[in-house]
Amino acid sequence: MSHLAIDRERLLQRLHELGALGADPKGGRTRLALTDADKSARDLIVRWLKEAGAVVHIDQIGNIVGVLPGSVRHATIMTGSHIDTVARAGAYDGCYGVIAAIEVLDAFRVANERPKASIAVAVFTNEEGARFNPDLLGSRVMSGELPLQAALDVRDHAGCTVGDELARIGYAGAPLPAELSPSCFVELHIEQGPVLESKNLQVGIVDAVQGHAWWKVVIEGTANHAGTTPMELRRDAGAAAMSLATEIIRAARTEATPNVATVGSLSLEPGIINVVPGRATLTFDLRDHRPGRLHLAEARLVETLKELEQQGFTVSAQCTSRAEPVSFDAGLCHELELAAAALGATRQRMISGASHDAQMIAQLCPSAMIFVPSHRGISHNPAEHTDPDHLIRGAELLLHAILRLQATMGDSDARPAV
Amino acid sequence: MSHLAIDRERLLQRLHELGALGADPKGGRTRLALTDADKSARDLIVRWLKEAGAVVHIDQIGNIVGVLPGSVRHATIMTGSHIDTVARAGAYDGCYGVIAAIEVLDAFRVANERPKASIAVAVFTNEEGARFNPDLLGSRVMSGELPLQAALDVRDHAGCTVGDELARIGYAGAPLPAELSPSCFVELHIEQGPVLESKNLQVGIVDAVQGHAWWKVVIEGTANHAGTTPMELRRDAGAAAMSLATEIIRAARTEATPNVATVGSLSLEPGIINVVPGRATLTFDLRDHRPGRLHLAEARLVETLKELEQQGFTVSAQCTSRAEPVSFDAGLCHELELAAAALGATRQRMISGASHDAQMIAQLCPSAMIFVPSHRGISHNPAEHTDPDHLIRGAELLLHAILRLQATMGDSDARPAV
Repeated sequence: MSHLAIDRERLLQRLHELGALGADPKGGRTRLALTDADKSARDLIVRWLKEAGAVVHIDQIGNIVGVLPGSVRHATIMTGSHIDTVARAGAYDGCYGVIAAIEVLDAFRVANERPKASIAVAVFTNEEGARFNPDLLGSRVMSGELPLQAALDVRDHAGCTVGDELARIGYAGAPLPAELSPSCFVELHIEQGPVLESKNLQVGIVDAVQGHAWWKVVIEGTANHAGTTPMELRRDAGAAAMSLATEIIRAARTEATPNVATVGSLSLEPGIINVVPGRATLTFDLRDHRPGRLHLAEARLVETLKELEQQGFTVSAQCTSRAEPVSFDAGLCHELELAAAALGATRQRMISGASHDAQMIAQLCPSAMIFVPSHRGISHNPAEHTDPDHLIRGAELLLHAILRLQATMGDSDARPAV
Repeated sequence: MSHLAIDRERLLQRLHELGALGADPKGGRTRLALTDADKSARDLIVRWLKEAGAVVHIDQIGNIVGVLPGSVRHATIMTGSHIDTVARAGAYDGCYGVIAAIEVLDAFRVANERPKASIAVAVFTNEEGARFNPDLLGSRVMSGELPLQAALDVRDHAGCTVGDELARIGYAGAPLPAELSPSCFVELHIEQGPVLESKNLQVGIVDAVQGHAWWKVVIEGTANHAGTTPMELRRDAGAAAMSLATEIIRAARTEATPNVATVGSLSLEPGIINVVPGRATLTFDLRDHRPGRLHLAEARLVETLKELEQQGFTVSAQCTSRAEPVSFDAGLCHELELAAAALGATRQRMISGASHDAQMIAQLCPSAMIFVPSHRGISHNPAEHTDPDHLIRGAELLLHAILRLQATMGDSDARPAV
């Protein structure tokens, strides 16, 4: 089946065409979920799916599922990603995985081949969470993680519900046919990080997604005159906060516990050069793909905060968001690696630092991801960029992986030609 | 001369009366230099000085100098402080030293005694610097540190000059008579810090004023996704800034180099929980009474910033304010200690963490200070408080010290009675 091929020019042209929708005057594109810009992008994707020969379904949370029926009954290989964006986004995040998936269908169409298993291209609703909270909304509902009605009732800042907005843009659909329940799911995505580029590798086989724990910590000490208060009589909330942050970040650097630790925000009050801070407010973003290590890092944070309390500080700490790590399917990752090896792509196993729909679909069926390099790791930014050669290679890997996966699926349940 | 005595009730009543001028609706009092509120306070002080028998002079920068002439020619013991305030100030900062000094004159008046040396009570213009920059304006001019015309030309935020405001409130005076040039200067002040209270001591003999160096530092790294950027590929400007601050503060704590180090202000950009900070802006307030140690602390800061540059950060650092440490006169401090011992006051030698007019007058003549405890070290705040017993004891120490100092002054140059 090596005569099936990705059309380089069409893939790049479609990324360009999709990227032009929702152009933001401040740069990049802003296609928040279920806005008019998202509707125009959805309409374009549905058109391309149909042109590729797919039967297009819309489910009740607005996920688009374009299916190229296979010859084997009840065997569906699902792929895809999302086309909603954050504000002033790049052109690749999500869109690349959707367009490459459509390209796989087109490869069958051009070769005039029928796949053995059905190939379903999924476009998930509100992956970014930039308009509606939580993120990964469409895949949460498809996986059963979030009840449909709860998702439909989610409101944006203006008070509009997901349900009303789906109806308004014409994407409130019906339950998917049971036979479309996926046998496996492969999501192709840009890395959104610097690892592959820094190692000069072409693809990453993603076998886990980091979990995260977000903490907001407030430390209260005593504001004092910076000249007249000796060090031993201070309760310097800023010094305590900065020392705590330094310690947590050091543990991530030197002990890899957790994988990554970030203090993105810190404010000192009163915030004056010659006043010892009486209050510090800071955030911690801790991530790891190993549940035990993530919990260990959180336990250390809580332990250190208790020590601060014993030193006379008043501390309040709140976990504001948590997601457990997700391990992808080992067998599926192995198939992806074999496919990459067959293509001669330089590669490594890696974890995903960001969240993706695949981590939700992993609750439904064996799932995994393929990453291609992101230039300088930049994402959620108009400067987001991946070299065209990398884009094509990633799509070719997706195609070849799907061909390999098809080959493993039994013919016992063959479906009559339609 | 032990029959000279401080009038407890009058001293407390005058603190109360002066503290009522410039009452701020938000709490405390706001008597910025050369405002109408400052004028009413000046008028009250001039009245009390005259009632105490002083000849009142106003110099060209508006310093008030009330003189009780002594019997010895060309011997003037100067004392005093300031009556301007910051916004929403306490009632003691500066005012206490001025009122206690007037009380010393009253003690002579009530006892019907004439001092041997003249006693001059100075009330310095714009000590706080809350309206006009620099602070210590009146004592800078008296000491010769700042030329008169430069001081008169200083403008407030609204563009008003010191010279115009002095004329407006009727406090633009004339050069002081040469014979008022002080032989020595003693300033009585509240500590504005927690040291004396924490050690349960009654008075402090201040033998030095800390110098300070203020630095503003900007560290630029690279803003990255907090999930997708491994620790080893980050240039986390926030982590660099917090680690630097922790190190500088630790050196002050454990090595007393400098005496005190404060990071009062730190901001991270973009300041989002899941974005590695690309830029950190922070301030350092370093203080020491030993010039070498202050410079060593600054050199360490600069050295560490160079290391950050070698690690790939872009660093800019600027010294925004500097004052060299001041040592007070050893002989005068010794006299103050003997006076305190004679009174049976529990005491210690100490340094001043804040700036005071005495550090300027020290350029003109042997100078030193006496501190009384500040409850919880609170100052520049309506909650500023010193126990009345401490206030009286401090004034008694000032009186007795002046009596001791008089005794050391020769009679060779006796002046005829007027």
